[in-house]
Amino acid sequence: MKKNNNVFPKDLTNTIHLGDAIDTLKTLPDNSVDMIFADPPYNMQIEGTLKRTDGTNFDGIEGNKWDEFDSLQHYREFTYAWLKEAKRVLKKDVSSLWVIGSFQNIYVVGSILQDLGYWLINDIVWSKTNPTPNFMGTKFTNRQETLLWATPAKNTKYKFNYKTMKALNGGKQMTSVWDIPVSSGRERIKDDNGNKLHPTQKPEKLLYNVIVSSSSEGDLILDPFMGSGTTGAMAKRLGRNFFGIERDEHYRDFALKRISSEITIQDDFTKATFDIKPPRVRFWDLIEANYISKDELIYFKKSDKVAKISTKKELEFDGEHYGISKLGGILEGKSTNANGWIVWFVKRDNKYVSLDEIRRKYRQKELGFYGK
Amino acid sequence: MKKNNNVFPKDLTNTIHLGDAIDTLKTLPDNSVDMIFADPPYNMQIEGTLKRTDGTNFDGIEGNKWDEFDSLQHYREFTYAWLKEAKRVLKKDVSSLWVIGSFQNIYVVGSILQDLGYWLINDIVWSKTNPTPNFMGTKFTNRQETLLWATPAKNTKYKFNYKTMKALNGGKQMTSVWDIPVSSGRERIKDDNGNKLHPTQKPEKLLYNVIVSSSSEGDLILDPFMGSGTTGAMAKRLGRNFFGIERDEHYRDFALKRISSEITIQDDFTKATFDIKPPRVRFWDLIEANYISKDELIYFKKSDKVAKISTKKELEFDGEHYGISKLGGILEGKSTNANGWIVWFVKRDNKYVSLDEIRRKYRQKELGFYGK
Repeated sequence: MKKNNNVFPKDLTNTIHLGDAIDTLKTLPDNSVDMIFADPPYNMQIEGTLKRTDGTNFDGIEGNKWDEFDSLQHYREFTYAWLKEAKRVLKKDVSSLWVIGSFQNIYVVGSILQDLGYWLINDIVWSKTNPTPNFMGTKFTNRQETLLWATPAKNTKYKFNYKTMKALNGGKQMTSVWDIPVSSGRERIKDDNGNKLHPTQKPEKLLYNVIVSSSSEGDLILDPFMGSGTTGAMAKRLGRNFFGIERDEHYRDFALKRISSEITIQDDFTKATFDIKPPRVRFWDLIEANYISKDELIYFKKSDKVAKISTKKELEFDGEHYGISKLGGILEGKSTNANGWIVWFVKRDNKYVSLDEIRRKYRQKELGFYGK
Repeated sequence: MKKNNNVFPKDLTNTIHLGDAIDTLKTLPDNSVDMIFADPPYNMQIEGTLKRTDGTNFDGIEGNKWDEFDSLQHYREFTYAWLKEAKRVLKKDVSSLWVIGSFQNIYVVGSILQDLGYWLINDIVWSKTNPTPNFMGTKFTNRQETLLWATPAKNTKYKFNYKTMKALNGGKQMTSVWDIPVSSGRERIKDDNGNKLHPTQKPEKLLYNVIVSSSSEGDLILDPFMGSGTTGAMAKRLGRNFFGIERDEHYRDFALKRISSEITIQDDFTKATFDIKPPRVRFWDLIEANYISKDELIYFKKSDKVAKISTKKELEFDGEHYGISKLGGILEGKSTNANGWIVWFVKRDNKYVSLDEIRRKYRQKELGFYGK
């Protein structure tokens, strides 16, 4: 592959590369990726067995080669290497990285993130609504995994579709604790023998939140440990592009099949319309485009206080000239401006219509803006 | 102070030492502390301001000297130093350490814990039921703090009152996500001017869970960053001993006042009676202590299947000799043993009384055991 910095290669977009994460990341151009989501292998704290200590996937872990780190030092070096390459490929102006892990590895990951100059935005708790009970009774039932969300550097900006997430959360600010069940039933990918394909398949809802909150349609999302392909499947469903890396051919093939069956949806959440700022419109734009005629009367709060359109400013009232907000404030008896778009009306078919309503039509018909 | 290793000094027990955490820890004996709870100062990620990024205590942080770490490297050295001393003073056979922090510092703390050879048992999420909203809308509302629970070494045992915590949780296993409100109202300590005394006062319920789950009555609990004294107050209330370190005289004085007004309670939770194993009792103990006489008949499941007491084993039935569980299994038609204490009865005042009930009375009267 030829590196062409600042642009992600078109021929790699929406593919999964079979190979090692670090080796493959090294072949990718600088400054070319909008977002990374990574579910790196764990450093197993329990030596001698490959049983997962969180209990959730203990039946699937045995013999899985990617969980074979046998020392903390080895795990640190591995983590440092992939996070360093991740930082390089992320865009320098606007981008962010998500990493998910459990208590066995997330403290090492978080610490190295900070060492490398990443800037933590949030740590998110995935609180499992259906955790696996701790049969031994030797510790608290491990209920959560942790997602770290960071920019690659302190001065890198990031996307956060705040209002969209608030709308998704029923009008309440979304917090850093997410209650989501573990993948099961139809969502859980089975192999040809009917067994769970991958021991740590992530729920679609988790990736939905990650992608909708912090990326835009058309963004390139990279997953260096693609596994069963949830990141790719959700990227496609939500109208984003992806690039996956996976070293296990078996997983890669299943992930490609899974992704090919996805259909892209488009709605207010995938487009984050709640967070799109409406284009600026001036009062005179409406007159110049004949949405209001120059000789119409303009009514203050549907009352008999009436202004004419001023060729000097915006409105004329009692022989003086004002902007719509300034005059609105004066008529309200305040020393501050009113919202001129809301307090002024025109009459159409003997009904009052606010300037705000006319502006909305102008934005739709003239500017193609249908946001909130 | 003279160090006398393996024993915590009596003259320090239930006091707060005015001084630096690391300097003071260095004067304490090795291998002498049952539990440590620590709420170390944060490494403020936001440079140039002392605003807390979790939002919960942003009004209290300005000018507080203990939050002045200005570089990640400095914070690492500080964390390494106190955790190393903490490891030395903790008992080598049975002990554990709790540290609470937020995303600004907990990844560094967790990573250094693992470097020093501590062994993570759980990470616990304190999910605040009343988090401070994020007014800026620039990130997810930070809802949680994280508690790390670890032993000082892999081969150190720890106490976990599993059944007591399950009983406290209404019969369900307690998980690693704890929903607890932020301290407010009467619990929140005010200074003489009516302002919050300490910006990060921890809820009593949080310390209640920590202390009840992983210590016993009479244990010595050390808090190297005592602050407003929640650890000391809850230790006293729950019948544990404490030693606090606090470098701010103002906080120390308030904490001492607060602790002196606490009254010790004793109940099934403070005593963890649900987790006390009943002392072992043999069938013949009941006969030797005359709880059952040698010529009594023993009834299988209140039926007409009756055994005599065997001087060779425990029971005699059809001329053969058996233990109570073995014969119980045979009469149930199983190839495995039954629970002999439950299937066999004697008759008292013409009513059936199980061996289990008689054993319970024996344990209470002869052995003083009143546990569950």
